[in-house]
Amino acid sequence: MTSSPRRPRVVVVPDSFKGSATAAEVADAMVAGVRAAARGAGIPEPEVRAVPFADGGEGTLDALLDAWGSTPRLVAATDALGRPARARWGLAPDGATAIVEAAEVNGLPQVSDVPLQPLAATTRGVGTVVRAALDAGCSELLLCIGGSATTDGGAGLLRELGVRFLDVDGRELPDGGGALERLHRVDAEGLDPRAAAVRWRIACDVTNPLVGERGAAAVFSPQKGATPVDVAILDRGLRRLAAVLLAVTGVDVADLPGAGAAGGLPAGLHALLGAELAPGGELVAAAVGLPDLLADADLVLTGEGRLDQQSFHGKVVDTVRRLTPAPVPVVAVAGSVTATTAEIDAAGLTAAFSIARGPASLDELRAGAVEAVTATTTQVVRVWLASRTTSD
Amino acid sequence: MTSSPRRPRVVVVPDSFKGSATAAEVADAMVAGVRAAARGAGIPEPEVRAVPFADGGEGTLDALLDAWGSTPRLVAATDALGRPARARWGLAPDGATAIVEAAEVNGLPQVSDVPLQPLAATTRGVGTVVRAALDAGCSELLLCIGGSATTDGGAGLLRELGVRFLDVDGRELPDGGGALERLHRVDAEGLDPRAAAVRWRIACDVTNPLVGERGAAAVFSPQKGATPVDVAILDRGLRRLAAVLLAVTGVDVADLPGAGAAGGLPAGLHALLGAELAPGGELVAAAVGLPDLLADADLVLTGEGRLDQQSFHGKVVDTVRRLTPAPVPVVAVAGSVTATTAEIDAAGLTAAFSIARGPASLDELRAGAVEAVTATTTQVVRVWLASRTTSD
Repeated sequence: MTSSPRRPRVVVVPDSFKGSATAAEVADAMVAGVRAAARGAGIPEPEVRAVPFADGGEGTLDALLDAWGSTPRLVAATDALGRPARARWGLAPDGATAIVEAAEVNGLPQVSDVPLQPLAATTRGVGTVVRAALDAGCSELLLCIGGSATTDGGAGLLRELGVRFLDVDGRELPDGGGALERLHRVDAEGLDPRAAAVRWRIACDVTNPLVGERGAAAVFSPQKGATPVDVAILDRGLRRLAAVLLAVTGVDVADLPGAGAAGGLPAGLHALLGAELAPGGELVAAAVGLPDLLADADLVLTGEGRLDQQSFHGKVVDTVRRLTPAPVPVVAVAGSVTATTAEIDAAGLTAAFSIARGPASLDELRAGAVEAVTATTTQVVRVWLASRTTSD
Repeated sequence: MTSSPRRPRVVVVPDSFKGSATAAEVADAMVAGVRAAARGAGIPEPEVRAVPFADGGEGTLDALLDAWGSTPRLVAATDALGRPARARWGLAPDGATAIVEAAEVNGLPQVSDVPLQPLAATTRGVGTVVRAALDAGCSELLLCIGGSATTDGGAGLLRELGVRFLDVDGRELPDGGGALERLHRVDAEGLDPRAAAVRWRIACDVTNPLVGERGAAAVFSPQKGATPVDVAILDRGLRRLAAVLLAVTGVDVADLPGAGAAGGLPAGLHALLGAELAPGGELVAAAVGLPDLLADADLVLTGEGRLDQQSFHGKVVDTVRRLTPAPVPVVAVAGSVTATTAEIDAAGLTAAFSIARGPASLDELRAGAVEAVTATTTQVVRVWLASRTTSD
């Protein structure tokens, strides 16, 4: 070929290397590697776009702020036990999309200083953060919900937005999932109209239903302090919530895949406000405009700490591959690669490389991960550039 | 680019991975990797040519036999102490080039069962093998000389070809470098005319002169059993040999770089028969037609056990890079890569990859080397093919 009329475009979309480097650090290291490769190859430096990836779990807020170039916004809210807590949230530069990471306020770590209260823990604080985002005028709310201390079916959040949860006597129930078994009626008359107008999207990577033996109470509440008796109470409460919501909205969330995430947080939002549940990786990707970037790329680099069979099911590498048009090569750089060549092939990846440069312990690899990502990326991009330069 | 009109050509030229795999095993593993890469990429399988490399040292005979597809020839000869020894040698398919590995007969291991005799050890046996090659009608003799037990300036070899080494009384000297200090005259009247007609090329990777403090006796004879007194005797003998050869031929071999290799074996051959000394890697490369193969390649893969700064000075990787036209990418796959990106770049390599796929000990890497070479080669070639397929 003669030299390409435009500079090659490389898009860099790594996950974090857990225990070694954040996604942003890995992305920076990859960008340095791409630049170093071009310097040695005597060809125009590729346009490099770096998008530290996140899958909707811990670190998603930071990754989006980084991708957007936005500074975090702060709001005074409350934790899962109702104590004051400051929360960060983010707004895209165009002001349309807001990201709220629920664990900023209702996370388990925030309440780990006192005995866990699985029946009383509430998502009210998340509602406070959501209100701040609505106040800012967003038209789309991206809600990341992992790591919660709550099992209240999202009731607390909805209360903060004006929904009332009433017992048979028309009295407000106390906060927390423990009271939901006494739920008789949901009154959405006072719902903040902005909450009904925005598009809600919830990042959700589990498929657990709201109730039953795979439900929010049975599977997740024990790690939030629930005894077997508590589990039974919470499951009854969530069943009651589903029944009442069904009566009000016609939407049945009891068996909705993913409604069991984060203590049932999606349940009420889905039934009352039409919140969509989707894999976190895809929501985040959409929020940073990744599909367009990938469609326009000549080479896509991704990676994570450990590339194994799990990587090909809903994790970063898998999401990036699915969002990238088939002819564009996707190459992974990982701390370690345990996937076989056949597995890498079946997953649609072009290739996968470890950052290891010889014998090394896990600790040694971790300590030198950032530099090694740069070095390995340089080698990979050199090979890719060499072919572009010499093929004819 | 549109698809290339011809299948891409990949040439595979690895050294052995010492302690893990022979050069032929590494080459086979790389070929398997190239084929696997093409299978997954949906493009025509590259033409792959494999040339297990050798640098003129141990294993060169085997590498050439393998590259030529020749079976070894056998000849009854004698070891450095004159005891019967069977030697292998090789002939190229066209019958023109013969390879003789001197250590097949005059090597140290062959005489390690008895006390070393540095003054008496002789290269006569090598001459016997050379005669067999001349009998077969070769027109070029490639002589690999490393690992010798001798310090006789090549006198024994030349005697077997008809040259006489005489004392002041016109009597034949006994075999071995210890007698050379009494050398008075070299009589080449009886030299086998075929020996004068063929082209001699000696693989030589040291630059030591024949005599003096960096000479054959001072530097190499102690490891062949020479005491300090023996060293002095041998050095005087080689000086005497150089003086007599200078008188007969006008060629001064005393300070010739490389004449000190293998106990001065190149000295007489150079002075009397015009034998050329050249780096082993380049001679072997020429013998297998490597320069033509490399000039016609689209991608060259090389490698060795450990890629470090030494690799860029006369070793396989360096030779392959120098013989490959500049635009053709050369990628190294190594057990470990300790060279930095800057060093890899300065050496003119396109890129270098380790076979490590994550944390691993040296023993683990060695045990899985062959499979890992295939896996890593597959990944490298995938990246290279991907670019050829998608660049436009």
